[in-house]
Formats: sequence, C-alpha cells, structure tokens
Amino acid sequence: MIGFENLKRLSHVSPSKIVLLVIDGLGGLPHPKTGRTELESAQTPNLDQIAKQSVCGLIDPISPGITPGSAPGHLAIFGYDPIKYSVGRGIVAALGIDLELKPEDIAARGNFCTLDNRGIVTDRRAGRISTEINSELCQLLNENIAISRAQTLVTPVREHRFVLVLRGQGLSADLTDSDPQQVGLAPRKIEPLSPSAQGTAEIANEFASRVKNLLQDKSPANMVLLRGFSQQPDIPSIAEIYKLNPAAIAIYPMYRGLAKLVGMQLLSPGDNITDELESLRRHYQDYDFFFIHFKTTDSRGEDGDFEAKVHAIEEVDGALPNLLNLNPDVLIITGDHSTPATLAMHSWHPVPVMLRSKWCRRDPVSKFSERACLSGGLGRFPAVEIMPLAMANALKLDKFGA
Amino acid sequence: MIGFENLKRLSHVSPSKIVLLVIDGLGGLPHPKTGRTELESAQTPNLDQIAKQSVCGLIDPISPGITPGSAPGHLAIFGYDPIKYSVGRGIVAALGIDLELKPEDIAARGNFCTLDNRGIVTDRRAGRISTEINSELCQLLNENIAISRAQTLVTPVREHRFVLVLRGQGLSADLTDSDPQQVGLAPRKIEPLSPSAQGTAEIANEFASRVKNLLQDKSPANMVLLRGFSQQPDIPSIAEIYKLNPAAIAIYPMYRGLAKLVGMQLLSPGDNITDELESLRRHYQDYDFFFIHFKTTDSRGEDGDFEAKVHAIEEVDGALPNLLNLNPDVLIITGDHSTPATLAMHSWHPVPVMLRSKWCRRDPVSKFSERACLSGGLGRFPAVEIMPLAMANALKLDKFGA
Repeated sequence: MIGFENLKRLSHVSPSKIVLLVIDGLGGLPHPKTGRTELESAQTPNLDQIAKQSVCGLIDPISPGITPGSAPGHLAIFGYDPIKYSVGRGIVAALGIDLELKPEDIAARGNFCTLDNRGIVTDRRAGRISTEINSELCQLLNENIAISRAQTLVTPVREHRFVLVLRGQGLSADLTDSDPQQVGLAPRKIEPLSPSAQGTAEIANEFASRVKNLLQDKSPANMVLLRGFSQQPDIPSIAEIYKLNPAAIAIYPMYRGLAKLVGMQLLSPGDNITDELESLRRHYQDYDFFFIHFKTTDSRGEDGDFEAKVHAIEEVDGALPNLLNLNPDVLIITGDHSTPATLAMHSWHPVPVMLRSKWCRRDPVSKFSERACLSGGLGRFPAVEIMPLAMANALKLDKFGA
Repeated sequence: MIGFENLKRLSHVSPSKIVLLVIDGLGGLPHPKTGRTELESAQTPNLDQIAKQSVCGLIDPISPGITPGSAPGHLAIFGYDPIKYSVGRGIVAALGIDLELKPEDIAARGNFCTLDNRGIVTDRRAGRISTEINSELCQLLNENIAISRAQTLVTPVREHRFVLVLRGQGLSADLTDSDPQQVGLAPRKIEPLSPSAQGTAEIANEFASRVKNLLQDKSPANMVLLRGFSQQPDIPSIAEIYKLNPAAIAIYPMYRGLAKLVGMQLLSPGDNITDELESLRRHYQDYDFFFIHFKTTDSRGEDGDFEAKVHAIEEVDGALPNLLNLNPDVLIITGDHSTPATLAMHSWHPVPVMLRSKWCRRDPVSKFSERACLSGGLGRFPAVEIMPLAMANALKLDKFGA
C-alpha cells in the first residue's frame, strides 16, 4: 500500500468521474447440482459486456481466509486498511439505524435480557420481545434516567436490540462489556480499560443499575446487556485523501452511515436499484465520485436462497443500461465480500471485481464471474488497492517520485 | 496479514479436522530434455484427483526471489511471519539432532577446524573428519571442560559438525561468531553485541581457549569455530493462536523440532510415508490439526537427481489413498520451498499448493503442478496465509468486525 500521505500528494482534481457499484455479498459458491455459482447461474448480459471492456480480478476484502463484517468490507473498498480503521460494534449498530452521532459520542450495542430472581441471565434476548415492546421500554428508560455527567440516549432496533449512546465531555469508549455472552452468569460490571475511562465506566454502570430498577417488573425484559462500546474512528475523509467530491447512493442505513463516516454526501436513493441509478443520473454533474450500494444479493445469500440471489443479480444487471448511458470515465463493479447461499453467511472467498476505463488494459475475460475473473489482468489483490486503481484510471494521480 | 491478536479473537474450537501435508522441496524446474518439471514428469493420479476437488495456487514461502532455509520455510507454512520469527543457526542445528533444549539455553553451530602453528585457520572443516572421530573429540571436550558460570555441552553432528549448548542463568545469545568464514585468518574473539551479553561472551571465549589447549595435538581437528549463537525464539503456540490441538508426524529431527517449537505434539512417524499415514490414521480422533512431513523429495532434489525426485513424488502419491480414506474436512498439500534437481539446492521459486474442503470454491485446475496451479483460484500468495485459509475452510474462524 502506498499510504495516505503519498496519495494526498499525488492526487489532483480533474473532471473525470468514477462510479463504484458495490453488489453486497456478490461472491458465491457453486450450487451442488449445477456446479455453477450464483453469478455464473444468473443471466447477466450487461455485466458480461462490461467484463469484455474491463480489466478483471478478484479481491480479498481483508486478507486470505478472513470473513469480513459489513463495516470492514466497505472500508476496504473505500481504500481504508480495515484492520487499522476498525469501527466498533456500538458505532456499527448506530450507523445501522441512521442515528445522528456527534464525534465524541460513545455508542454501545444493547440487548434486553431476562434475569432470574438471583440476578442470573436466563435469556440473553428476553425471548426476542417484539419491536413494539422494545420501543416502549426504550421510551421508559429515556424518560426516567438522567445521569448528571452524561446524557444517555436509548434507541430501539429490531426485537430485543437497541443502541445506547452516551453523550458528554471527555468520555472514553475504553470499556469492557456487561454482556457475559452466555446464560447462567450475572451481567458483568463494566470496567475501564484505561485510566481515562474510569468516569465513563461509572456512568455506564450507573445507567445499568438504574435500568435494573426501572425494569424489575418488566419480565421477560427485566435487564439490559451492553457490548462494543465505541466511538467513531478518527478517519481521514475521501476528500482529504483523494481530493474527490464523493456522493453515496445507498438504501440501507448501515451503508449510508459508513459512507458518511468517510465524508460522502448522501443522495436520496429511492426504493430499488432503478431508483438509485436514476438518482445517479440526476446528480451526475454535481460530484466526481459515486458509491452505489445494492443490498439484496447479500440478504438472499444470508437467507440461503440460491435462486433468489441469482434473481437479485439479474435485477442489478437489468438496471445497468441506465448507468452505462452515463459512460463514466471509470466504472468499478465488485462486492464487499462473498455471501454464498450454500453457506448462508458472509464468507472469506475472494470477490470478483472489474474496472472499466479508457486506460484499463483490457484482459481476455468475457464474463463476470468468480472463475472467469481468475484469469483477469488485476489478478488477486487486497480490496484497499481499488481506490488507487480507480484514481489512476481516472487520470487523477500524479507520478510517484522523479 | 491479519495478525495473531485478531486470529486469537476470531478462532474457535470445532470438531472439523485439518491435515497439512508438506512435501519438502516440492517445487522444481523443467528437465532440459523434456521441458517438464519433476512434478509434471511424475505419474500422480491421486494428487491430480485432489487438484480437481481443490482450490489451487502458488505460495511464496518468504517473498519473491528469496530462497528459504528449512526453518523459515516451515514457520511460514505454520502461519508465522518467517522474517519476524527467525530461528538462529545454532537452534536449527540443535533441533536437527533432536537435542532437548531448555528455554534459556544458548546453542551454537560448531565446526572442528585446522589451525597452523601460527594459529591461522587452514581448513574450516578439519579435512571433514569422520563422524566417529568427531564423537570422540566431543566426548573429550565434555569430560574435560568445566566452566563455573555455565554448563557447556558438545554434541556431535555429521563429519566435522557439532552443536555447542551453553546452559545457565541469565545467558544472552547476542554474540558475534568466532568463525572467520575463510581460511588465512585466526578464529575471532567472540564479542558481546549488547552489554547483557558480556558474561556469556567471556564464557564462550573461555570455552574456545580450553578447547584449543585440549585439542592442540589432535590435528587436523585442533580447534573449533563457532557461529550462530541463538536461543529458541519466543513464539506463540499454534494452540494459543488458533485454539487447535495440533500433532506432527515427521521422520527427520529438524522438522520434529520445528513442530515442537510451535507446540505440536510429536507422533511416532515410523520409517516412511506409508507409516506416517498409518500413524495419522491411528491418532486421527485425538487431534484436530496434523502436520505430516515428507523429506525425500528435497533430498533427491539437493542430490541433483531428477529421476529420483520424480520417484519420491510418486511414492507420496501412491501412499495418499490411506490419507484420503480419512476424508479430512480440510486437506492442504504443498511444499516448504522448491528444490529443483537441475539446481541441486533450495530455490526461490513459488511452490504449488492445493486446499480441498467442502467450501473451497474449486477452480478448473485438473493437475497438481507448477504450471497448472498458475490458473488456480488461490492465485500466488505468501505462505503465511495458508493457516488462516485452512482455519476458514474448517469453519473455525468468526467474522472480522461488525
């Protein structure tokens, strides 16, 4: 990796435009019956046509064998070393529900849980209470807990899940979890992991103790478990590094949140990939970098529904002519990780990528698939290298060294 | 590289089993007459069948262009950055003769040599004295040298070679060699490379001076040269990093020593690859990771005997059905480096590797060879990534990041 300091020096503004389409969970594994992956099974005339005009390859989102979560998967594609720039679980949960965070806020992922009368956790998810009950409980906590040294803001997610935000001066996220991760144990006291976190630990423990009093008659949701205390990472923006003016078109809050984290402007995405590409068309003159996110491929992969993932890929393919009409100087299509339907979860397998530009040095690949991309001109490489390649192909990077 | 701290967090125990078969010096170069490498010349129906069911590729043991010794070649395959975790020459020599070392022992590689009457080295190998004479001289030194501050233990190797172990409290291996590396110079005084090594330098020099007195009439072996003072590296075990319960089946002491260094249990290997695989079968229920080492390919490569190396490869291939019967969840076959018979030495060339598992995303490679693996799904990658890939394919690694 060339490093951000070098990229800042080498980058320059130019009128060329880069479009990065992320098909979430794109990579797959062969169907046991046909021997073809989801991408190989789908009818994808547009993707295949682009492959013929592109240089292709396979990315490792993190490193070989490592299965990425959504946050590191996307940060890598945006050019950030996903091991160095980690996003804590609390922050990811907050991003996932579009919470407006201040830079100093501490966020934690919370579960409502069930304690028995000795204070031992008997269900870490409180019987998966309904989202409605969850919302009522969150309101109860927000209305009745006031701690002098910090605001505590509780926001419901689905079922038993919520996000806790601690807002105040000089807080630290250097805290252990209260979640013991298994039933049969009491919730743990939250401990500071550094001296500067002493005060925040006290606030978090005070919050937990107030919750316990307020919820004592609310069984099964009579307590909370907290984990992944974190702050937004201090991350240089895309504009700082590449002198780009970047925009994001994403329907799901998590990906909008990640895009915002790296300084992208959020554009209104509509309801589906056709709407997203219409939004791209509408704003095409206003930015020079566009991140477009398509989620359904990952969701259907996680469902283990091979056919539905195939159809989701075909849905993207069918929408592509509206993107191709814009003829971006650099078009990159890839995924943030693989989500093989046969595994029904994120996986470590490398992800096909193609980059089309006037200057891309095309290879003989004529189909966009895991196997076809094996013989691509980009080879197999870490996802963090995508951004420098995009910038180079947009002729936005100066020569390194004299 | 994802790093050990992350791997420790992500690894979990599961019943799946990993078998790693290392065919030492596997990679080769084409025979000038046929244009085929050793592996391409061998009849390998079993290896080829496994290749069809695997994802294939080529590893760089250290980095492109770097020829590995046996120690770094194996450490890389075991997942240790071979540049960071170096094993000194003295320790490698001790491992090579199955010496039981204590953690604080200092080991050095020794040569018996010849000095002229002015004390100048005239033969660094003392005319390659016989191993019998070597043993007698070692016994003489052990019986007659006693230094108050440390035990000195001399153990013969082959011909003129021996291992010196310094055993005591607070010793340091931060020492220069006494071996001047060429004839025409006197043996050098051993110098400390850090203040804490002052005392150990005095012990080593006292040892050398006693030897000189004891051997003065023993020409041609009338002195010793010492090099590669080293201690066992402080290396986290395979169990610590991956939560594996690993076992090693290796006939040669050096490889047993390296396996022990990373915390593998040593199983009785028998006399040949068939015995080794029988040992695997016998112990298959007791461990979840097995390293099996096959040496003959490297030995015949170093002999420069192309045909014999071909036969050694066929010997492994013929034994494989007994391994395949066990149907390990993850099977990896590779080498620790290339030893082309035409070069008759270790070389820098990348080494074929294949990984078979239910989740490996097979590629179109249908033969196990240097050239066929070029189009493999793993591409060309550093050997240290093998372990994370093995763990991923065994479904023993959690997702990285939220």
